[in-house]
Amino acid sequence: MLSALCAAAFAIPAAAQDEPEGPPSPNEIVAQAKAAEWTTIAPSDLLVMDLAPDAKGKARRVVIQLMPEPFNQGWVRNIRKLAAAKWYDNISINRVQDNYVTQWGDPNYDNPAATGLAKPLPEGLEVMGEGDYVYEHYTPEELSKLDAPPLDGSGDSYANWTKFVAGLPMANDFMSEWPVHCYGMVGVGRNFSPDTGSGAELYAVIGHAPRHLDRNIALVGRIIEGMEHMSSLPRGTGPLGFYETPEERTPILSVRMGGDIADLPGFEYLSTESETFARYADARANRRDPFFIKPAGGADICNIPVPVRRKG
Amino acid sequence: MLSALCAAAFAIPAAAQDEPEGPPSPNEIVAQAKAAEWTTIAPSDLLVMDLAPDAKGKARRVVIQLMPEPFNQGWVRNIRKLAAAKWYDNISINRVQDNYVTQWGDPNYDNPAATGLAKPLPEGLEVMGEGDYVYEHYTPEELSKLDAPPLDGSGDSYANWTKFVAGLPMANDFMSEWPVHCYGMVGVGRNFSPDTGSGAELYAVIGHAPRHLDRNIALVGRIIEGMEHMSSLPRGTGPLGFYETPEERTPILSVRMGGDIADLPGFEYLSTESETFARYADARANRRDPFFIKPAGGADICNIPVPVRRKG
Repeated sequence: MLSALCAAAFAIPAAAQDEPEGPPSPNEIVAQAKAAEWTTIAPSDLLVMDLAPDAKGKARRVVIQLMPEPFNQGWVRNIRKLAAAKWYDNISINRVQDNYVTQWGDPNYDNPAATGLAKPLPEGLEVMGEGDYVYEHYTPEELSKLDAPPLDGSGDSYANWTKFVAGLPMANDFMSEWPVHCYGMVGVGRNFSPDTGSGAELYAVIGHAPRHLDRNIALVGRIIEGMEHMSSLPRGTGPLGFYETPEERTPILSVRMGGDIADLPGFEYLSTESETFARYADARANRRDPFFIKPAGGADICNIPVPVRRKG
Repeated sequence: MLSALCAAAFAIPAAAQDEPEGPPSPNEIVAQAKAAEWTTIAPSDLLVMDLAPDAKGKARRVVIQLMPEPFNQGWVRNIRKLAAAKWYDNISINRVQDNYVTQWGDPNYDNPAATGLAKPLPEGLEVMGEGDYVYEHYTPEELSKLDAPPLDGSGDSYANWTKFVAGLPMANDFMSEWPVHCYGMVGVGRNFSPDTGSGAELYAVIGHAPRHLDRNIALVGRIIEGMEHMSSLPRGTGPLGFYETPEERTPILSVRMGGDIADLPGFEYLSTESETFARYADARANRRDPFFIKPAGGADICNIPVPVRRKG
């Protein structure tokens, strides 16, 4: 018998034999989406990171969708340059702090006992500053492109409202819009000064959404495949979750743009402006499938992960 | 140089050399708490779970603080009985679903290919039902004991308000109060019917708070030490994150009440009704320490983890 908490997760055929009849689960709703409701992610917007194989020799590939325009594009352009220069090859994952972040970069820069022999950065990287962490300068045309309806019925502790734009979680006040630190989002490490993050050092959120980082660090994308390779790494035992010995670090073999990888599958996300996405988001906020006694009546934006799948 | 995102985490001596002067971080505030502001957790309220050692032979102990009265005590009493009967010894972790839960129990019950040869439960376990998932029946005396001020300035997507009670995150509407599914909370797996969870099968939250489970599954405690042993396990590749082969399961060697373990350290939490906790919660919602450009102006309750430490 497939028991206990199963229905609270995702309805699947293995569980169906036990499941009473009832309204569809969020994932059953997604499974019914029309082909036209799925939006292809261009391979040129994917960053593909190959970690060293795991202890059993199994390959570990992490696929990141880069942030679309107009958000944080200075950092995104730097990341494209760093990938083109193969700068990320042979760096490592240096920090894994539980319920917070997995962080990677040059181990000679990115750890408390660094030697100072940091890898030189390519020329021509842009320097972004304090004003670049939110998007404020809408034109009417941009507004019409960007604005999806805010999420219904959901208080938010961090913003006046939240919504999805081009498949990514965003927050707003009455002046500006910014990407949200949900699970799996990828951001740019920096030092104390806001202009110190180039994109050479990156992190992924592996715990409860650290929304206090919104507007304080630049988000540049989200992991759409291979998240488990980042979230299941051993936690570092040094301060802030840094690894204490070089042997603990996970080597990063290569990072390439998706367009440069011949055998990369295609990916698509459920359009966040589609009718099915609206039904899915409502069902995430009001679980009516048979397991549930009491629908919540709301959901925070990070509890509505945007469905992504391989094409075909 | 200790760089990039460091200050966003916890201020520590290793980082201090680079850190500009400024208001204290949340953890610096906690470090200044008076001794009297820390509340001892009785060993008799701790459930201590020893997993099999890891691949390098290192011990893995997980310490769970059980939910205080009046919340979900039927399940808590069952768990005490199961531990006393050593029922949990030699069961295993059978499911790890990314951004959701790590779940343990009898592998002959708790997996899709179960044999049906489930381990018999001890006699006398209580059966709880639909009405037991929220606490509704206050007396004036209980109210006066339970009520801490709601969190300020924080919208919540799932409840009319949230607050901490006896060191644990709680949510309210105008009729009832219930524990909240934050990271590290421990709950009772069940089948479709609300009366099917005994406490023999448990899970811990290892991702973004799945608040839609609030009032639908019984929370019975939270992990106060050893969380990294639950969150860094390999994710299961079967449906719902169940492991597909017995070899993947992590054996649980023993589960005992804290009072029955001679060498267990003492634990204490920062009283959630203390002045220092109020300052800490405010600082989590409004980061003014030097790394931050823009304080959030709010925090959801799961982003204010209650500080816990070993005594002495």
